[in-house]
Amino acid sequence: MKKDSAHNKAKVHFEPGNVDIVVERGANLLQAAIDASVHITASCGGAGVCGTCKVLIKAGEVESTRTEKLSDQEWEQGLRQACQSKVLSDLTVHVPVESRLEKAVLTREAKGTQETVATGWGFNPLLSKYYVELPPPTLEDNASDLSRLLRGLKQRYRLSNMTVDFEVVKKLPQALRDSDWKVTVTTLVTAVKPKATDLRRPRLINVEPRDTRGKHYSLAIDIGTTTVSGQLLDLNHGQVIAEGIDYNGQISYGQDVISRIAYCQKGGCPKLQEVVVATINGIIRQMLDESGVNVQHIGHLAVAGNTTMMQILLGLDPKYIRLAPYTPAATFIPPVKAAPLGIELGEHVYLFTFPLMASYIGGDINAGVIGAGVHQRKTLTYYIDIGTNGEIVVGNSDWMVAAACSAGPAFEGGGIKHGMVATSGAIEDFDINPSNLEPVIGTIGGEKPKGICGSGLINIIAGLLESGVIGQNGKFNTDLSTKRVRKGREGHEYVLAWAAETQTGKDIVITEADIDNLMRAKAAMYAGCQTLASSVGMSCSDLEQVIIAGAFGSHLNIEKGITIGLFPDIPRDRFTFIGNGSLLGARLTSFSTDLLDDARSVARMITNFELSDNADFMKNYVAALFLPHTHADEFPSVKEKLAKLQKNKPKQRTTV
Amino acid sequence: MKKDSAHNKAKVHFEPGNVDIVVERGANLLQAAIDASVHITASCGGAGVCGTCKVLIKAGEVESTRTEKLSDQEWEQGLRQACQSKVLSDLTVHVPVESRLEKAVLTREAKGTQETVATGWGFNPLLSKYYVELPPPTLEDNASDLSRLLRGLKQRYRLSNMTVDFEVVKKLPQALRDSDWKVTVTTLVTAVKPKATDLRRPRLINVEPRDTRGKHYSLAIDIGTTTVSGQLLDLNHGQVIAEGIDYNGQISYGQDVISRIAYCQKGGCPKLQEVVVATINGIIRQMLDESGVNVQHIGHLAVAGNTTMMQILLGLDPKYIRLAPYTPAATFIPPVKAAPLGIELGEHVYLFTFPLMASYIGGDINAGVIGAGVHQRKTLTYYIDIGTNGEIVVGNSDWMVAAACSAGPAFEGGGIKHGMVATSGAIEDFDINPSNLEPVIGTIGGEKPKGICGSGLINIIAGLLESGVIGQNGKFNTDLSTKRVRKGREGHEYVLAWAAETQTGKDIVITEADIDNLMRAKAAMYAGCQTLASSVGMSCSDLEQVIIAGAFGSHLNIEKGITIGLFPDIPRDRFTFIGNGSLLGARLTSFSTDLLDDARSVARMITNFELSDNADFMKNYVAALFLPHTHADEFPSVKEKLAKLQKNKPKQRTTV
Repeated sequence: MKKDSAHNKAKVHFEPGNVDIVVERGANLLQAAIDASVHITASCGGAGVCGTCKVLIKAGEVESTRTEKLSDQEWEQGLRQACQSKVLSDLTVHVPVESRLEKAVLTREAKGTQETVATGWGFNPLLSKYYVELPPPTLEDNASDLSRLLRGLKQRYRLSNMTVDFEVVKKLPQALRDSDWKVTVTTLVTAVKPKATDLRRPRLINVEPRDTRGKHYSLAIDIGTTTVSGQLLDLNHGQVIAEGIDYNGQISYGQDVISRIAYCQKGGCPKLQEVVVATINGIIRQMLDESGVNVQHIGHLAVAGNTTMMQILLGLDPKYIRLAPYTPAATFIPPVKAAPLGIELGEHVYLFTFPLMASYIGGDINAGVIGAGVHQRKTLTYYIDIGTNGEIVVGNSDWMVAAACSAGPAFEGGGIKHGMVATSGAIEDFDINPSNLEPVIGTIGGEKPKGICGSGLINIIAGLLESGVIGQNGKFNTDLSTKRVRKGREGHEYVLAWAAETQTGKDIVITEADIDNLMRAKAAMYAGCQTLASSVGMSCSDLEQVIIAGAFGSHLNIEKGITIGLFPDIPRDRFTFIGNGSLLGARLTSFSTDLLDDARSVARMITNFELSDNADFMKNYVAALFLPHTHADEFPSVKEKLAKLQKNKPKQRTTV
Repeated sequence: MKKDSAHNKAKVHFEPGNVDIVVERGANLLQAAIDASVHITASCGGAGVCGTCKVLIKAGEVESTRTEKLSDQEWEQGLRQACQSKVLSDLTVHVPVESRLEKAVLTREAKGTQETVATGWGFNPLLSKYYVELPPPTLEDNASDLSRLLRGLKQRYRLSNMTVDFEVVKKLPQALRDSDWKVTVTTLVTAVKPKATDLRRPRLINVEPRDTRGKHYSLAIDIGTTTVSGQLLDLNHGQVIAEGIDYNGQISYGQDVISRIAYCQKGGCPKLQEVVVATINGIIRQMLDESGVNVQHIGHLAVAGNTTMMQILLGLDPKYIRLAPYTPAATFIPPVKAAPLGIELGEHVYLFTFPLMASYIGGDINAGVIGAGVHQRKTLTYYIDIGTNGEIVVGNSDWMVAAACSAGPAFEGGGIKHGMVATSGAIEDFDINPSNLEPVIGTIGGEKPKGICGSGLINIIAGLLESGVIGQNGKFNTDLSTKRVRKGREGHEYVLAWAAETQTGKDIVITEADIDNLMRAKAAMYAGCQTLASSVGMSCSDLEQVIIAGAFGSHLNIEKGITIGLFPDIPRDRFTFIGNGSLLGARLTSFSTDLLDDARSVARMITNFELSDNADFMKNYVAALFLPHTHADEFPSVKEKLAKLQKNKPKQRTTV
C-alpha cells in the first residue's frame, strides 16, 4: 500500500452545496461527506443495508461495493452508496435531494402538509464543527498555535478569512497539547450574507481536544410573555432530542407586556431579566437531564420572543416601547454572548435573536413567518400568533403587513380563573350532552383535570354557546335545570369538574368573567384581521390560507374557533395549526443559514400597522364583542348552525 | 436667504482620501472637512490668518474671502483657504500634502531625519468620530433607534455595512433622548484590509450624546520587560498630549522574560497579569492628570510588547514560549476589550495588540520596524531594539530576518548595582579627566544623581576604557593613584559620585560585576548582528543604515556604543537613534490605518532566526566578550583610537 505521498490526496467536490474537501485516496466517501459537513442521510449508519446514502458520481473514480439497494439502472447512471465507496481520484459528487438530510427533517416538521412550513432550504446549520489533525511544531516550523490551526483548517476544509474569538486563543495551547494536536473547532455564521461574490466570514468560537463532532447541539427557545418553551437540537441529525416548557417567571410581575414595562419603569428591569433567565436555565436543565447531553456540547442558542421580552432579556430597558411613537432599541441585535446574561451555557455560546420588527411585532413573529414559509409563497396568507399579545400578519412572498392586537393572555390561560398552559392535566377537549348539559372533558395526557388551557377554553365556550348554556352575549342562561351552572363568588359559572374528580381537590369552573376575557381577546384578534385586510383593500374572506400559531395543545379545534368568532368564517381546508410558530422558526433557522438570511429580508420587508390609535380597529373591535359577531353575516356558517341548534333547543331550557 | 430645500444640499468630495460628505449649501468648507474627518491643518483655528488650510477647488463653486495668505498665482490656480470658503455647489476639493495633518505629525517625529521614520502614510486613525443630527421618530417613521442611527450615518457620511457592538445598542436609546437626537458615534477599524474592491467594515463601538468630536483621544503603550511607557494621543490633531513611564510591576517577580515565565509555570500568571495592569493603570492616571482629559473620551488602546509580556497581559499562559520549539499562542491576537482585563478605561475600548511574530520576536519589534519605516525602503537596515531581551532585525522592504539575543536587562539598568531607568536623576553623560581620573557627570533633568541609566552605562564604560581605568577585558586597573577606584564588598568599583553629592545619600558606583553584565549584554547583541548578517551572506560592514531603538535617554552616544563593541564599527552617519521604537510604532499606527495594514504584512514577511541553539552565534558571542572585541580588526577605528590613547597614557598609570 506504499504510495507516493504527493499523489496520495484527492479533492472531493460535493454538489449542490459546492463544498470541497481534500482526503486521502482510499478514504470512505460517506466519511468524507461527514468530514466536509455535507449532510447525507445514512439511516443504517454506514452498513450498506439501508440504501439512503445514494450519491451520483459525476466525475472521477470510486471503488464501490454493489449491494441489492442499487438497481441496474441506478448503477448505470453512476449512482453509488456513499458508505460503500472509496475515493480513488478527484471527484465531483452530486447528493440527490432524497439523500439530503433536510428532507428527513422537513417531513417530520410538516405533519402531512408541506404547504405550511418553510420548504426548499438546505440543511446548513449556522453552527459547524470541523476536526483537524495538525502536524506538531518543530524548530523549523514553529508557527504560533493559532496560525497552525488556521493553516490546517484551510488545507483540510478550505476555510479561510475567519474571525477568531479571543477565548479560542486562550484555550488553544492546552487543547492542542492535551490531544496530540488533534482538535475539533466550532464555527458560527453571525454576519448577514455578503454580496453574492463573497464568501461568508465564519467566526471561530470554540476549540475542543480530540474529535467531538459527534456531540454537536444547539438550543431553540421561544420566550413568550406567559410561557417559555425550548428545544434541544442535534445538529448532526437535524433532530429535536428534548423539549422543555415552563411559565415565564416574570408572570408574578405583571401578566402582559405593558405591566412588565411599567415594572421596568420603576427600576425593575434587572429583576425581570433575572427571573426570565432563571426560567430559561430551568428549561435548559430539564432538557439536559432528559437527553443526557453535556452542557459544554451546546454551541448555540437561538431565541425568539416579542420585542419587550427580548429587550428585557438583553438588559435593554423597554420603557420607550410603551411611549409613542413606540420605538424599539434596535431591529437587528448584534450577536451577544449568552453566559454574561446569566444563561448557564458554555462561555463560547452566542445568543442569536430574531429581528425586532417594531415595538409590538417582535422576533417571535419574524421567526414564525419564516418557519411557516409565508415569505416563500404567492398565496395570500393570514398568519395569526395567539399568545399574550396576539400578533397577526397578512401577506405573501411580495409584501406583508403586520399588527399587534393587544389580545391579552386569555389564550394562554392568563386572567382565567382556572386557566393554565397547555401541559398535562389541562382540559383541552370539551363536549356537552345537550339533554342534561353534563360535560365530557378530555385532558392533555389523560390525567385528572388540573385547569383549562387555551384550546380548551375555545372548545368550552363554543360548546356552551351551541348548547345554549351561554348566550351570544357571553352571559349565562340562569334558568337551566342543571347544578353545573351556579352563582359563584365572582358571578355565574359552569362547573367543568367536581372537586372529587380533579387533581386540585377543588371544583374546576369557567366563570362569566373568564368568558368575557376570552371574548375581548378574540374580538381584538378578529378586528385586527379585518383592519389589516381592509388596509390593503381586501376582506377576511379573501384570505387563501390561515396559519395559526400559538401555545395551544395539539387539539386546537378550528371549527370551534370559528364558532366563537376568533377565526374568519371561510372554508376549513384553508386553515392549519402549526403549534408554537416562533419555536418552529427558531428551530428551522438553527438548521439552515438560508432561512437566517430570509429572516433578515422579511424584517426589512414587513410593514407595521399601529392599531392602538386606529378608528377602524376600534369600530371593528366593538362589533366583534359578541359570539361570534354583532354582524352575523360575517359568520354565515355559524349563523346557520346556531339557528339550527335553536330549533332543537333542549327541553330543560325555559328561555334563550 | 430662503431657498428651495430640495436644492439646499451639496456634496463635497475630498481628494486624495476620496471622502464624500453632504452639507448644506453655504456651509464652511473647513467645517465640512472636519465633519467628514478629513484632517486639514488649520493652525490658527479657522481665523484665516495662518494660511495653512489651503485647498485646491478642482470642480464646483465656492464663495471665498481672499486674504494676503494667498498669492496671485495660488488664487489663479484655484487654491482657497478652506476656513474662508463657503460651499455653493457640489465640489471636488484636493487637499495638498502641505495642508494635510500627517505632515505636521511627521515633521515632529522625524527629528530632522525623515529617513528613519515611516513616511508616506495618510492621517487616517483607526478610531473615528462622527456627529449626526437625526430626525426624531414619529408614528409614521418609528424605525428602531439603531436603524435610525445607521440610516443617519449612511445619509450623512456614506457609512454602511457596519458591525455594531451590543453595548452601543444598550446606551443608544438614552443617548438619543438625552441629546434631542444629536449624537456622536465612535467607529474603529478592527479587521484586516479586505480585497482592494471592498470597503473596510468599521465597528461601531460607542455613542455619546451631543457633539463630542472635539474630545477624541487614544493611548499608545509599550510594555517592556523592565519599563512600561505610554502616550496619550489627540486624534484630532495628531499630537502626543501627555506621556507616562514607570517600572513594570512584574520586576519583583523576575528580571527577564524567562524568570517571569518560570513564575507563571508555578501558577503565577494571574498575579503577573494583575501587577502589569496596575502599572498600566498608574501610567494612564498620570497622563489623565497631566492632560485633564476625561477617561471616557479615550476610545482606543494600542499596546506593543514582547510575546511574553503580551501573553501575560492577555491572560494567555506563556509556558510554551520557554519550551522548544518555542511557539506563541497566536501571531495575530483578535480584538479584545480592555476593561475586562482590569484596565481602567471605558467599556467600549478595545485593546489592539501588534502581531507576535515568534516567541522571542514580539509586537514591540513589529511596531518598531513599522514606526522606523524599515519596510518602506530598499536600504539594507539593521534595526536594533536594546531592551531587556535585545531583539534585532536585518532587512529592507523585500525581506527581513529577526532574532532575539537574550541580552539581559543591563541596558535598562537591570542587574546593575546602581542601575535605573532613564528618568530624572539618572547619570546619562560621563566624561573623565585623563589627568586625575575625576569624572564629569551629567544627569537627566540636571538633578543630583540617583543612579545610572543605560546610555550612561555605555558612556561610563567607554570612558573608563579610553582612560585606561579598565582594561579591554573589563577588569579594573588597580594600580591607579585615585580614590575613585576602590575595593567594595562585591569586588572592585569606581565611584561616580560621593554620597554628599547624590540624592540617595550614598556613593554611586560602577562595579566590575556591572561591567561584566554590560559586556555580556553587548556581546550578545553584536554576535546576533554578525550571525544574522552572515545568515544572508553579508557582514556587519555591509549595513547601510542602523536604527537604534531602546528605552535610553535622549543622549545615546553612538561613538561610545561603537567603542565598547555594541554597534558595528561603520560610518557614523549611518546611525540613528529613535528612542522607544515600539512606542513610536504604536503611536504612528494609531494615527494611520495604512500602517496597521503594514504591521500585518511585516509580520507575515519576517523570518525568525533561533540563536539559542546556533553554533555560529555561540562562537561570535564568546569572541565579543572583550572591549570592543577579541578580533580587534572588527573595530578598526576603535583599535586606532585605543592605540593612540595608550601612547598618551596618563603618568599616574603604572601598568596597563
